[in-house]
Amino acid sequence: MASINELSVAALEARLAELQTEYNAFCEKGLHLDMSRGKPGADLLKLAPGLLDCVNEQSGYLAENGFDTRNYGILDGIPEAKKLFADIFGVSPDNVIVGGSSSLNLMFDYIATAYAKGICGNEPWVKQGACKFLCPVPGYDRHFAVTEYFGLEMINVPLKDGGPDMDLVEDLVKDPLVKGMWCVPMYANPTGLTYTDETVRRLAALKPAAADFRLMWDNAYCLHHLSDDQDTLLNIFDAAKEVNNEDIVVSFTSTSKVSFPGSGVAAIAASANNIADIKKRMTVQTIGFDKINMLRHVRYFKNLDGIKAQMKLRADVLRPKFETVLRLLNERLGGKDVAAWTNPRGGYFISVDLCDGCATRVATLMKDAGVVITGAGATFPYHKDPRDRNLRLAPSYPPVEELELSATLFCICAEMAAIEKKLGK
Amino acid sequence: MASINELSVAALEARLAELQTEYNAFCEKGLHLDMSRGKPGADLLKLAPGLLDCVNEQSGYLAENGFDTRNYGILDGIPEAKKLFADIFGVSPDNVIVGGSSSLNLMFDYIATAYAKGICGNEPWVKQGACKFLCPVPGYDRHFAVTEYFGLEMINVPLKDGGPDMDLVEDLVKDPLVKGMWCVPMYANPTGLTYTDETVRRLAALKPAAADFRLMWDNAYCLHHLSDDQDTLLNIFDAAKEVNNEDIVVSFTSTSKVSFPGSGVAAIAASANNIADIKKRMTVQTIGFDKINMLRHVRYFKNLDGIKAQMKLRADVLRPKFETVLRLLNERLGGKDVAAWTNPRGGYFISVDLCDGCATRVATLMKDAGVVITGAGATFPYHKDPRDRNLRLAPSYPPVEELELSATLFCICAEMAAIEKKLGK
Repeated sequence: MASINELSVAALEARLAELQTEYNAFCEKGLHLDMSRGKPGADLLKLAPGLLDCVNEQSGYLAENGFDTRNYGILDGIPEAKKLFADIFGVSPDNVIVGGSSSLNLMFDYIATAYAKGICGNEPWVKQGACKFLCPVPGYDRHFAVTEYFGLEMINVPLKDGGPDMDLVEDLVKDPLVKGMWCVPMYANPTGLTYTDETVRRLAALKPAAADFRLMWDNAYCLHHLSDDQDTLLNIFDAAKEVNNEDIVVSFTSTSKVSFPGSGVAAIAASANNIADIKKRMTVQTIGFDKINMLRHVRYFKNLDGIKAQMKLRADVLRPKFETVLRLLNERLGGKDVAAWTNPRGGYFISVDLCDGCATRVATLMKDAGVVITGAGATFPYHKDPRDRNLRLAPSYPPVEELELSATLFCICAEMAAIEKKLGK
Repeated sequence: MASINELSVAALEARLAELQTEYNAFCEKGLHLDMSRGKPGADLLKLAPGLLDCVNEQSGYLAENGFDTRNYGILDGIPEAKKLFADIFGVSPDNVIVGGSSSLNLMFDYIATAYAKGICGNEPWVKQGACKFLCPVPGYDRHFAVTEYFGLEMINVPLKDGGPDMDLVEDLVKDPLVKGMWCVPMYANPTGLTYTDETVRRLAALKPAAADFRLMWDNAYCLHHLSDDQDTLLNIFDAAKEVNNEDIVVSFTSTSKVSFPGSGVAAIAASANNIADIKKRMTVQTIGFDKINMLRHVRYFKNLDGIKAQMKLRADVLRPKFETVLRLLNERLGGKDVAAWTNPRGGYFISVDLCDGCATRVATLMKDAGVVITGAGATFPYHKDPRDRNLRLAPSYPPVEELELSATLFCICAEMAAIEKKLGK
């Protein structure tokens, strides 16, 4: 298809009129659709049917160390759950803490501790002055909300093909007030891209001026391939060990998109120093996390292979959803210079860069036609996309028929907005 | 029996020798017993056998509002869980947030927020100077650990028969740096006593100098009667409403000792202002708590009456344990002026005041004979019991036969320590 940059004003006006007609037809459908949330659809939730029956009177409540999971005790997780997450993270069980159901909560607590109490013997950030945090963009709005909540100044770091712009990162960490960086290193939210080995090595080898600088390594999608054509991520703990820099990273993951969001199990992996430091706080913070739910998960999935088999079932449901959206983007926008989008091999999102200044307009057009998408700006700190061009599409929740409609509408709106812009409307 | 104050030195020496013989015999048994933790025994854990089977493929996953509890969404709890806790607290469901499995974690988060971010628009405590917290003593070590963690200066407030010394409290809250007070108002940990209506009214009517002063109302034992002979606690929310002072209190409870410790459900009750303030933080902090576990609990217990029926079953198991310890205390120490103890109608503990300076000695004697009890000083801030006399006995975990042994040994040790003290040894 022709690039809009090659069309005459008259041709653009004509095309806009066509699109407007198509758009109006959509508005008349009275749609109420949602492509905003990275949440599993009903078709995904039903893929672990026996999970909730794994712990009861018949099967018993004992962890493998003989501990009754129904009682108080064990702060950092039952041994078999630590082992399972250790295998997921690629670390030793000693480097794992198994938590409650929300990895975001574990991340919030980590930042909250660094802010209010200090980590590993360092001064609390609240007492160190105006601390800053590096935010690869586009990124995950919930990460940005946590650092914004604690008043940390967020610095945008552009994502390149291989991950964050490392020259910039290496320069920024010379500032002792730069305290950390959010990373979704695999199938990133929202781009779906995976950091290259070189990026991981450079991150693992960072020598920040701040002793309490931490990579917040949110490996939420480490198992979330869409097919057998998979990305691989270098193990950052191995890379950090090679350069004697193991304290620089704290990693998080959860089974939110393996079993059930909100009722899964979340975990932390970190160096011995960081684990000991986190446990010191946890001893005061809680009487411990839900060990019955840990036992349930281990009994159902058994081991890493069991989890991988589950992820294959889920990929079979997710793949057609991604394919639907990507097909429509290609068919309707390919070659038009109206948008660029990612083609992820895993994760939960497709990231679309529209023409500059078009994201807010497209989100509004969509909303007016009855389809909610993640708001413009959401993928940037302070909800400020400097070019107002990025939108995140989340194909996981709606059924394929709905995605056909939503994605078609999205393409119409994207082209409309680009032409409007071009015409100075 | 004769008071040790009426015995001659020779009689005391003779009695001490007898006790030493008894004590030595205990040591030779090679005991490994534990009367330290307020945790349910195996006999209590088996009282909710079907709870974990309440939510599965057969029964379905939908909350009463049609929401699939297996997915993201609903920050403050499913409606039926809010209703159940509202009935427990005696408030409206709008005044309830249902959390994860640990009420201690909810309390920690509340204090952490007040410290680092400020509550209800007030300056964070960390920026207000050396803040202080009132601690009724003896009290719960985990409360004290939270306030100590955040560097709040803890001020002891003696517990009288009707609750904390209110004249003292009313005086102390004139200091704008006094920011709150820990309260276990019913069947308190460790005394087992319940605040009188007058105490609750005076607390509800407090006019502290600090706008961000809060009563941390840990109603952990609100349903935990030992028999039909029950204490009643005035509803502090009603009392506060009468004097237009509803923001002064934030209340917490959990099913840790109703269903399963660590795998139960915890909740907060508070005024509309406080609830809105807490939710603002929670929006950033977590993707939400385990709704499947909430649903499980509501389906199993159904309503407040269901919970009360469960607590009756538990009382039947707990009562003989308490009776065993109290009988031995009476039989072996009654009239000797060696110790005074509480005779609670609910809760999980018996509090013993030994002769001054004897608590550490008794805990050591017990430990040397193979029986762990809660450490001396644990019931006071900074682990400093100014008179070194209070010990907490926890009869819930061991079976009755073990309690016979442990409590007998305790009585021997208490009398030994008192006589040693008297003799200046």
